[in-house]
Amino acid sequence: MQPLVLSAGEPAGIGPDLCLRLAAGGMPAPVVVVADPDLLGERAARLGLRIRLRDYEPGTPPATAPGELTVLARPLAVPVTPGHPVPANADAVLAGIRRAVEGCLAGEFHALVTGPVHKGVINAAGIPFTGHTEYIAGLCGVAHVVMMLAVPGLRVALATTHLPLREVADAIDAEGLEQTLRILDTALRERFGCSVPRMLVCGLNPHAGEDGHLGREEADIIAPLLERLRAEGMRLTGPVPADTAFVPAHLAGHDAVLAMYHDQGLPVLKARGFGEAVNITLGLPIVRTSVDHGTALQLAGSGKADATSLQRAMALALEMRA
Amino acid sequence: MQPLVLSAGEPAGIGPDLCLRLAAGGMPAPVVVVADPDLLGERAARLGLRIRLRDYEPGTPPATAPGELTVLARPLAVPVTPGHPVPANADAVLAGIRRAVEGCLAGEFHALVTGPVHKGVINAAGIPFTGHTEYIAGLCGVAHVVMMLAVPGLRVALATTHLPLREVADAIDAEGLEQTLRILDTALRERFGCSVPRMLVCGLNPHAGEDGHLGREEADIIAPLLERLRAEGMRLTGPVPADTAFVPAHLAGHDAVLAMYHDQGLPVLKARGFGEAVNITLGLPIVRTSVDHGTALQLAGSGKADATSLQRAMALALEMRA
Repeated sequence: MQPLVLSAGEPAGIGPDLCLRLAAGGMPAPVVVVADPDLLGERAARLGLRIRLRDYEPGTPPATAPGELTVLARPLAVPVTPGHPVPANADAVLAGIRRAVEGCLAGEFHALVTGPVHKGVINAAGIPFTGHTEYIAGLCGVAHVVMMLAVPGLRVALATTHLPLREVADAIDAEGLEQTLRILDTALRERFGCSVPRMLVCGLNPHAGEDGHLGREEADIIAPLLERLRAEGMRLTGPVPADTAFVPAHLAGHDAVLAMYHDQGLPVLKARGFGEAVNITLGLPIVRTSVDHGTALQLAGSGKADATSLQRAMALALEMRA
Repeated sequence: MQPLVLSAGEPAGIGPDLCLRLAAGGMPAPVVVVADPDLLGERAARLGLRIRLRDYEPGTPPATAPGELTVLARPLAVPVTPGHPVPANADAVLAGIRRAVEGCLAGEFHALVTGPVHKGVINAAGIPFTGHTEYIAGLCGVAHVVMMLAVPGLRVALATTHLPLREVADAIDAEGLEQTLRILDTALRERFGCSVPRMLVCGLNPHAGEDGHLGREEADIIAPLLERLRAEGMRLTGPVPADTAFVPAHLAGHDAVLAMYHDQGLPVLKARGFGEAVNITLGLPIVRTSVDHGTALQLAGSGKADATSLQRAMALALEMRA
């Protein structure tokens, strides 16, 4: 298997810390980190970690020994103070992501694992940037992707992601939902090895609309679509009430839950495995997983950042099929 | 302590089954069941339970011995077939609830525990009925009540309840939210013995609006209200992102979570303790708890209904202060 490529993300955040922390104990798999070597050296010193940085050479297996880290160098424009992201480095951060994505597309790397970026500072640099996932989708030439989060025993995909709540209902339409379900179905087969994926689909409204008394989207949009896709052979349960969808008896036998919006699906998932959740982008021509946390600027350089989510993201990327 | 009063609810549903099931093992506390004795006798025979029904006599302690059940008789209009509710009995069902509420208001009973009613059949009888809770609030002359659900270790109150998702954002206003928080604060003190209640308040939007990028309600409505109430001495954390509100580290030290809407708060709670959740109505002059399930018509008379939620509802009613 080709190595993983890990983009360290915002240099003033905890991304570099987490890479170094894992390297100190020995990377769990062959990994190439895209980052500025000077930054890594400075951060390692601050954290009291002795890490030998090795230049990435294509075709040569990356280091996995404790205390070693293989680096694909993307130099920053200006030096970094932990906790203080600056727009001047935004270009270099994005250049690192581009290089990593290109490597995945070319088969140089098995999968991309991303550390957190800082949306605000990238926009402050004058670069239009709506999100990490959207940026990667654009690099891959893909219009519709699906965000899925996973903890051991539970996968939750989202029909809509980062929208104000008042815009959610109007964002649910049959066309988008069909694309989402097809992407989820395909990814569960091709990436996760589910031979016949079974998906549990939540309604939009409480009690899944309660026969139209609490909303019409289930009857008008969701149920007819599921019926049509079931007729094609897709294994879809729903629309089901979200409040009971996540009880073990209902989850049993399903490979993923599709929630209609962010706070319908993610509170359960994060309550179940906070710090262990992995964010997976489905619908890309590459495997991409991500930590499920932000840049945590106040923790950068402190030694207090928790590497569990990054470890899980790497482990899951290794399990997924390229 | 005065006895509990338990309204058996829809006679064609599982409410009567659950009362009989508990009586068979011996009621865990002095309880008076409001129901039709003929229905209970017929249902007991169908379930193969030998239950001796005793007439309720005010001032005389209700039976708690195994196989005994004290009944406050409210005869139905027509005989019942399990699974088939009929409008003709709706009046009698509501009369039973009225009698139970009156008894609680008069101090005859410590608390009201309600079995499930069937909203559709009550409306089919030509009786305007928007919900069990609203009906009881009306009997008590109270305009604003708060629905809270509880499982061991977690209480979740709701700022809005049974609304189509597209109506939720407009239903969040400072006045209603303030009433809700005051009712929750008072109930945690007076009913649950929390000397200084600490409440965790969710935002409306994903990431609690992410500084206005994902919605304005936090900045415009929720945060200023919480600030004002904190200045009065209320212990309020928030608005916090719902997806991380329910992780143990965030819940720690809080007596209840206030979710802004149904599917933001209840999936976590039910995933944590399905079948054990108790529905509590706050803001009433009486203590009222309820099972957290419906009439389960298809299970009535089958012996397969699970009495756990009713047991929990009774246990919680006993713990609460009248």
